Amino acid sequence: MLDRDMNERQVIRMAHDMHSGDTERRILDSVRRLFAEKGYEKTSIQDILDDLGLSKGGLYHHFKSKEAILDRLNADEWAVTARLLDKLIERKDMSALEKLRVLIVSAVDAPDHLDLVRSQLALLKDPAFFTANMRFWSTRLPESFRSLIDMGVQDGSIPTAYPEEAAQLLSLLGNYWLMPCFYPADRAGMEHRIRCLATMLDAIGVPVFDETLILRTTEGLTALTPEEDTASA
Amino acid sequence: MLDRDMNERQVIRMAHDMHSGDTERRILDSVRRLFAEKGYEKTSIQDILDDLGLSKGGLYHHFKSKEAILDRLNADEWAVTARLLDKLIERKDMSALEKLRVLIVSAVDAPDHLDLVRSQLALLKDPAFFTANMRFWSTRLPESFRSLIDMGVQDGSIPTAYPEEAAQLLSLLGNYWLMPCFYPADRAGMEHRIRCLATMLDAIGVPVFDETLILRTTEGLTALTPEEDTASA
Repeated sequence: MLDRDMNERQVIRMAHDMHSGDTERRILDSVRRLFAEKGYEKTSIQDILDDLGLSKGGLYHHFKSKEAILDRLNADEWAVTARLLDKLIERKDMSALEKLRVLIVSAVDAPDHLDLVRSQLALLKDPAFFTANMRFWSTRLPESFRSLIDMGVQDGSIPTAYPEEAAQLLSLLGNYWLMPCFYPADRAGMEHRIRCLATMLDAIGVPVFDETLILRTTEGLTALTPEEDTASA
Repeated sequence: MLDRDMNERQVIRMAHDMHSGDTERRILDSVRRLFAEKGYEKTSIQDILDDLGLSKGGLYHHFKSKEAILDRLNADEWAVTARLLDKLIERKDMSALEKLRVLIVSAVDAPDHLDLVRSQLALLKDPAFFTANMRFWSTRLPESFRSLIDMGVQDGSIPTAYPEEAAQLLSLLGNYWLMPCFYPADRAGMEHRIRCLATMLDAIGVPVFDETLILRTTEGLTALTPEEDTASA
């Protein structure tokens, strides 16, 4: 089990390292921070240039617009999940249900991933970024869950009559409802919420949240509580 | 009937308010119809003026922008729900579960309400409007569901260990996941989705979707399919 986790971590790290160059990496790091601090709308191209000491041409060589940078931030995030998913789908030594669990663990229990999510919490308050994310969570991300759930219907590990609905709900509830930045909760509240989700998913034949995953998800998501909430708690 | 103590100034003021109320009512009726027919984005201020035979100044006296009119329509719409909720809470002849069903029926089965929702479908693509709605659905609306669910825990009709979670999910899933503009579905797909929701809510002790409500909700929400979808279907 530990070996498996190491493999997944390596996959995640590899994906992070695949940015095409130092400048691009610097631009993305800067923009992620600026978007989080000032909001997407209020961050100007000039702000980005000032922060990096870069010329307009230097920036436009990599990205044609602010929107293109945002798309790239989202695409990078997605690429990590997509690569992990591809690796998981190929494996013959696990049921689809176990693969789905690994995918969820990778989202809530990988320090790198959590750091990235944490850096985007403020950004999620920005309407343009939030709306783009919601759209992704309602359209493209469910397709990934769907492929694993269909495998589970085939191998009998996910005996559901609602594969499409389960895929949509895992994506929507996992990325929105479970997130303490949208629905504040302390640790106990988070565990209760995840037990509620587990009960509902069990009822539609998607028994992905066993006791271990409930507790790991609780820990991972509690760690995403925005700082102002923990400070005042 | 005039109060004897009312002075002339107050009478003039009252007359002005009454007249002002009439114009406002006329504006809101017109705009609601125009938004429903043409959609929010495609309705111009000039369309509204033409429809009412009103001057620009006459309109701006009441509303500073198209967005302000929409805010007002939303606030009015919410007030209708809030009043219905108050009335329902007072009734002694129904269980809390039955009251919750009435509330849901009023949202999916009232022609006026559906017209307003339909008129806003295009608008929900606007990031600012969408984000504001999502925030309302995750914060204020669940409070209303929560008051009824708590009553149901008391009277035994809603035997749930997850009152807060159920309130959040009814609001989020009912306003977002069930909506065909966000998650496209034909009639059969919509019914399947609602049966999935019914199964999940049953499992957490919130048996609100009985066979009747499943079918009424299916009809109401299928009618909200954006026109470009039905045209191409």
